[in-house]
Amino acid sequence: MKAHTKYLWFNTKRHRDYINITPEVEKALKESKIKEGFILVSAMHITAGVYVNDAEPGIIQDIDEMLERLAPYRPDYHHHHGMGSGNGDAHLKNILTHHQVIVPVTDGSLDLGPWQQIYYAEFDGQRKKRVIIKVIGG
Amino acid sequence: MKAHTKYLWFNTKRHRDYINITPEVEKALKESKIKEGFILVSAMHITAGVYVNDAEPGIIQDIDEMLERLAPYRPDYHHHHGMGSGNGDAHLKNILTHHQVIVPVTDGSLDLGPWQQIYYAEFDGQRKKRVIIKVIGG
Amino acid sequence: MKAHTKYLWFNTKRHRDYINITPEVEKALKESKIKEGFILVSAMHITAGVYVNDAEPGIIQDIDEMLERLAPYRPDYHHHHGMGSGNGDAHLKNILTHHQVIVPVTDGSLDLGPWQQIYYAEFDGQRKKRVIIKVIGG
Repeated sequence: MKAHTKYLWFNTKRHRDYINITPEVEKALKESKIKEGFILVSAMHITAGVYVNDAEPGIIQDIDEMLERLAPYRPDYHHHHGMGSGNGDAHLKNILTHHQVIVPVTDGSLDLGPWQQIYYAEFDGQRKKRVIIKVIGG
Repeated sequence: MKAHTKYLWFNTKRHRDYINITPEVEKALKESKIKEGFILVSAMHITAGVYVNDAEPGIIQDIDEMLERLAPYRPDYHHHHGMGSGNGDAHLKNILTHHQVIVPVTDGSLDLGPWQQIYYAEFDGQRKKRVIIKVIGG
Repeated sequence: MKAHTKYLWFNTKRHRDYINITPEVEKALKESKIKEGFILVSAMHITAGVYVNDAEPGIIQDIDEMLERLAPYRPDYHHHHGMGSGNGDAHLKNILTHHQVIVPVTDGSLDLGPWQQIYYAEFDGQRKKRVIIKVIGG
């Protein structure tokens, strides 16, 4: 079994941001020379998410508005008392989106459907954050 | 390391539907002859989900009503402007349920708990959709 | 390819509870002697979740209050008619948090970010429940 590990760094200009990282995941897969296996794409912070959806106009805004509706940015979370960081909503948005996806690798390529793209979702940006990409297989 | 890949096709009669695909996943596992490993079950579309829950009466309706409450079917999503497809809610329901599960494989069987069943959740049906099942292991 | 499987049992005193199981996952990894691979941590029940977040004060309460807001504990779910178990909310909380995570294993250690901890989330406790930990790799 072969394995290949890579880390991506982010430091977004905006507090919340959604970045298509499919090209970076494809690049890590090519470096691994793995033909059959799984590639894990996983946020290493608890205020960010990783998800698969498509790149059509409006979807990012819809996702952002839903997350803001279900876990709004506001100052009265328990987490804020004592921590003072004000990012309680980002922890909850991480729970709702999940922080990772597995992409199947078939014949040396990402085995994604026609519209599937891999996104990094930043919920508490303007600081250094990291994602791990790890491929295992043969 | 061995790998086995299979694709399931769906074309549901209803706009939203929830289908127990545990027998198909078991069948793919038997074909693979893999005894120890992981089996990934992952929707290849961004308007469908895959989850594990049980088959008791009422659960599917409860899940559907919750998803409809959190990401309602309605015509005013950003995604609808310009696309005209009207399936903005399906993209959001995909985010909330997640589009994939990993089932552990132990001694040649799906290592699931007593009530765990694998479901395909269709959020924008009446068209051809696909799920990938991929097993890796030894 | 090597594989190692372990089961954790829980029987929480409280109806809902959130337990940091990172030390148990580390222990299972050490026993496996696997240096590179993936470790799956997955609830074997459909009324519990597994997630990664941090151990800072208040986060557990915030997660619990959000889940209670999105899928409240109450007696009028479809699932309750006929089943009488009253745990319809726990099935929905399981869907929202997801029931599993994959942790990458690099150089014999859990390759987690600085604040990432693995939690078992019990949504219908005071009974025996099980989690599977399975490592595959080399």
